Formats: sequence, C-alpha cells, structure tokens
Amino acid sequence: MITTSEAGLAGVVAGQTALSTVGKKGFGLTYRGYSIEDLSEHASFEEVAWLLLHGELPMYEQLVTFSEELRHRRSLPDPLKQILETLPSTAHPMDVLRTGCSVLGCLEPEASAEQQYEIAMRLLSSFPSMLCYWHHFHHGGQRIEVETDDDSIAGHFLQLLHGHPAAEHLRRALDVSLILYAEHEFNASTFAARITASTRSDLYSAIVTGIGTLRGPLHGGANEASMDLIESYVNADAAEQGVIDRLAAKQKIMGFGHRVYKTVDPRSDVIKRWSHTLCDETALLTLYEISERIEAVMRREKGLFPNLDFYSATVFHCLGIPTTMFTPLFVFARTAGWSAHVFEQRSNNRLIRPAAEYNGPGPRAFVPINERA
Amino acid sequence: MITTSEAGLAGVVAGQTALSTVGKKGFGLTYRGYSIEDLSEHASFEEVAWLLLHGELPMYEQLVTFSEELRHRRSLPDPLKQILETLPSTAHPMDVLRTGCSVLGCLEPEASAEQQYEIAMRLLSSFPSMLCYWHHFHHGGQRIEVETDDDSIAGHFLQLLHGHPAAEHLRRALDVSLILYAEHEFNASTFAARITASTRSDLYSAIVTGIGTLRGPLHGGANEASMDLIESYVNADAAEQGVIDRLAAKQKIMGFGHRVYKTVDPRSDVIKRWSHTLCDETALLTLYEISERIEAVMRREKGLFPNLDFYSATVFHCLGIPTTMFTPLFVFARTAGWSAHVFEQRSNNRLIRPAAEYNGPGPRAFVPINERA
Repeated sequence: MITTSEAGLAGVVAGQTALSTVGKKGFGLTYRGYSIEDLSEHASFEEVAWLLLHGELPMYEQLVTFSEELRHRRSLPDPLKQILETLPSTAHPMDVLRTGCSVLGCLEPEASAEQQYEIAMRLLSSFPSMLCYWHHFHHGGQRIEVETDDDSIAGHFLQLLHGHPAAEHLRRALDVSLILYAEHEFNASTFAARITASTRSDLYSAIVTGIGTLRGPLHGGANEASMDLIESYVNADAAEQGVIDRLAAKQKIMGFGHRVYKTVDPRSDVIKRWSHTLCDETALLTLYEISERIEAVMRREKGLFPNLDFYSATVFHCLGIPTTMFTPLFVFARTAGWSAHVFEQRSNNRLIRPAAEYNGPGPRAFVPINERA
Repeated sequence: MITTSEAGLAGVVAGQTALSTVGKKGFGLTYRGYSIEDLSEHASFEEVAWLLLHGELPMYEQLVTFSEELRHRRSLPDPLKQILETLPSTAHPMDVLRTGCSVLGCLEPEASAEQQYEIAMRLLSSFPSMLCYWHHFHHGGQRIEVETDDDSIAGHFLQLLHGHPAAEHLRRALDVSLILYAEHEFNASTFAARITASTRSDLYSAIVTGIGTLRGPLHGGANEASMDLIESYVNADAAEQGVIDRLAAKQKIMGFGHRVYKTVDPRSDVIKRWSHTLCDETALLTLYEISERIEAVMRREKGLFPNLDFYSATVFHCLGIPTTMFTPLFVFARTAGWSAHVFEQRSNNRLIRPAAEYNGPGPRAFVPINERA
C-alpha cells in the first residue's frame, strides 16, 4: 500500500504514456517526441491528429487519405439532428456536445475495439457539425447543411459557423490553436477518460467522460473565464486596477499557472503571437493590451505565467467565435489526444482503481428508526 | 514526485473518504460506520441513500419527507421523452441512461452547487422512469405514465417495468440489492466521477462519467456477463465442465474476485441467500444450482470467491428483469454513492491531476512531409 498525502494525486505517477511530455526536463512539451514549437509552426492539425493516433508523422499519401476520410464523416444522422433540435437553446454548448457524443454512441455503437480508429475519426469530424447545427437551429432558426468541402477541421468549423469559407490565415490561426490543445498527458479529462476505458467500456463513453470533465472552470472552462475577464475592462489601466482589486479580494484569476509547468507554459508564447496579430488586424488591439497588462500584473503580484487558455481567448474572439464555444473548440482538438490515450490504455489495460484513506466514523450499531435521537 | 510501478493505481491511496470502508481491517464493508449486514437486514434503500448523502441515519420525519420528495421527482420533461423515443430500440440501456442524464443536464442545469442535493434526488427518482419509458416505447409501442404512487424506488421501478405493483418480498429483494450496490469507496466509476467534479464541473457531468465508466464488463457490466454465463448451461454438471473448459482456454469468468477484497465479498453472502429463496419459489432452482457449482469450481480451481455481481444476476432474473437492465439497476443504486462522493469532493476540492511516466520517443526534429521516408 502506497500512501500519499498529496491531494489530487499531484506528482503521483499514475501510469505510463508514449504520447506526450509535459514539463519533463529536456523536453518541454512534445507530442510523440516532436516539440510543440515545431508542430505548431510546420504541421497541420490533421497531421498532428494522425501523429497522436498512429505514433508517427504521416506520409503524404496517408495524410491525403486521412483528410478525405475525415471529410466523409461530417454528416449527422437524422435522429441526432432531431435530438439537437429538441435540446433547449439555453443549453451550454459543452452539454450539447456531451449529449451529442452520447447519442452517436447509441446510433453507431462501438461493437468491438477494432472500430476505435473509425469512431475517433467520426467524432473528430462530426463534433463541429453537431455544435454548429444546434447553434444555427436555435440561434438563427436554420437547419444548416453540415457537410462542407473544406480540407481541414478548422476550415470546416469556421465555414459552418460563419456561412462562408474563412480567409486562409484565420483558418490557420484556428488550426494552430487546435494543435496546441490536442494533447496534454494525464490532465484531468484525459486521466478520467482512461479510467472509463480501463473498465473496457466503449470509446464514446470515454469521450463523454472527457467532455464532462473538461467542462469545469479549473480545466477547459478557463478559456471562457479568461475572455469574460478581459472583456470586462475598457483599457489596460482599468484592467490593472481591476485585477489588483480581485487579488485583494482573494478571487481566482483564470488562465494563469499550471499544475505541472512551474515557470512557463510553452504553448502560451505561440498563441500569444497569434493573439497580437489578430487583435491588430481586427482593430481589437485594446483587448491585446488589456491581456498583456493582466499578464504583467499576474507576474508581478503572484509570480504566475499565462497558460494556453489565456491568450487563446482573444484569438477565438477575433475569429468571431462566441465565447460559449471556446471550451467546445478544446473538445474538437482534445478528441485526438483522448482517443489516442484510450487506444494506449486498451493496448495494455489494467483496471484503474485506487484506494482511499478512511476518515469516517468507526463501526457503530444500527439503531431502529423509532429509537433514533 | 511519488513514483509507483503499481499499474491501475492498485493500492495507491488517492484521497480520503468518510463514506465507506472496503476491506479495511476490523471493518469489512461499512457505509458511514454501519455494517452492510445491518443495513441490508434492517434499512430501506431510501434510508441508506439519506445516510450516504447526509452522513447520519434519518429521523422518522426526515425519511418521510425524503421519500415524498423522491416521489415528486419521478416525472420526465416532454423534450426528454421525445429524445428517448428518438433513440434507437437497439441502444444499450446503459447508453440510454448516459444520454438521458446528459439531456436532463441540458434541460434542468445545475446553476450552482446549492442545487446538488435536489439534483441527486432528481436523478435517483427519474432514472427508473427514463429506462422504463424508453423500454416500453420501443419494445411494446407504449407511451407509459411514469409517475407511480409507490413508496420506494425499487417498487416504482418494478411497477413501471411490469405494469402492476410488485409483491412486497420481491420489492424487498430489489431494495436489498440496491442497498448492496449503493456505494463502494474509490471504485473506478466513483473515482472517475470525483475527477470530473474536481474540475468544478456540474453534477450531471460527474454522474454521466459514472455511468459510462460503470458500463464496462470489468466493472458494472459483470452482472450481465454472469447471467449470460449461468444461463448458458442446462444443469450444474454441464456448468462444471463448461467452466473448466473456459478456464483451460484462459477465458475470464466474470463475477469472481475483487481488486480490494482478498478472501470474501461481504455483499455476496447477503445476495446469495436472496438468490436461493427467489430461485426456489420461481421454480428456477436449476439456475441456483448452476451458480453454486460455478462458485465451487472457481474456489477449487482458481481460489476465487463470488463478488456481488455473481448472485445478483439470478436475483434480478427471478424478478423478471431483462438482462440488459442489470447494469442500469447498478446505476439506480450507485447514483446515491456517486452523488455523495461528489458532495465530499466539492467540500474540500483539489483538482485531481496525476503525473505520467514517459516511455515514448526522445526529442526528434520535425521532417517536412515531402522529405519523410
């Protein structure tokens, strides 16, 4: 019996992975050995998804086939469309995706683990369709056509959201963001999804676990909270005063610090450059200035650095994406990592079932209900 | 950094709980200090659910109020009924419950943690309604009325399933089974649900995680696998030979052994007595004889003892419950334990985020796609 007083399993090694390194000495963040800086500079999200699922970068023909297979999986079955129409317009988009994934698991169940790769592709392709179908039905009264010819998942989503193809550099901004969000070792949602897989449950159930776990503000929900904070100030000076006031009131500022990274989140530098570029060209430079000032105050007052979520917020905002869709974008990307972790868990499975330290009452005798006091 | 080579976190203490003891010296299995033997003999499932959620056994008036509150939460909103009708008749009932829970989270979302107790009651009461509504619509072409006046959850379910109130001792058999299934420390589904809660996600998401994780054959799915096994033999001698053959072929026999218990599952003795009684009175004694013989062979050949799932199978069968509903019954019961664990996690929360040992490739340079070989 290994006893640890570390709450939240902080620093406890819960298993092995060949998928990524987070904050390991000499590594920073790598996916399958490739640095996040290289991947976000040179690769497409589809290339990265293939890398995560297969272990190696694809050859040209493999990538072409993969992209084509993804394109062919964008449609939604009619019962799923009906259900998306039946969900309320007030639902949180994360709850819509959690439900949509669960429904697809009823309609196209995983009969055997041999289907896992196909299902991973299906979910990567259909999540943007689900979200946009629900969104346009409830917020624009339209039953949209969910199949586009766009080459990429990022382009598919932006086209469905806005009703026209996105400019290439905007599409690429989202593509980079998806790469940065694709995978992150044993984060809470991924580890929970591995537990689901460890009982030999199906891939849909594991992804549903991932979505429900990512939903919380201490995890994926942080990018939405960051946007709400940034938008709440009129300029950098107001932000400085506002953040100081919040810190004095012991309020938590989302988008800063990390359980594993101690000095820097390597993904933040990449997305910060995109935030600058996009805020500049969309005449929203004030939002970038506010963000930079919040970053400076947090470093000065708390010694904390921005994580991926903080500057992602303004990137998504400049792409015209509603704030409630920020965490769903995280889902689109992380579905690659979650699926690859399920494959890995299944390849050498042991039920994940820890022990607990008991801190409740000692043995006590049952008292019949009419004798209780 | 604590490193452990224990795969699956076996024996690793992942946190504290005051809810139950599993296999602790001097305890056996207790819920909040009360032995499972006492509770299954003297308490009702509603009393046990209250005990788990509140920490103490209820006073008479509290139990009356609780039962009444549960009764008032059995209805299903119209959109949920429509969605249950839209799901396919071929769906696995666990996928139906996973979806139903997710949909209810869209329709009646948890706006703040102050609603957690109400939502736990809502799920305890409405899961049997969801399952039976879906079942009768798809397998009998009927839109049933899901509200009954039955005092108990067990009675409510049996009445919805069979269309008439159950005889008292049959209702009590199910009640006892729900008590035994209500809670079990940091089992896989509960621990996964606590991870979901640890990101400050909502209660519905945590329960959805629980359902998806329980679904696997290494966890809740074991009771269905046990029934399939028992039913596959015509008599005890055939079962003996069949199990020996399976063991020789290195096949796993579900319903035996346990990650934590090493010599006996204290719940098995209780449910075994009910299995004997019910098989006897329903003229299905052969099923009981087959079960006992399988137990004997497993002890002799593998030194393994039956866990709760094994004899639960024949109890559910004798109650006229279809095999695919066995794991859903586990959900009805464990919703009490899952909810209580979420309350406990929230009361002293820290994000559950372990570390991983990296066993992948070392750092490698990115190769442009047209230079790969």
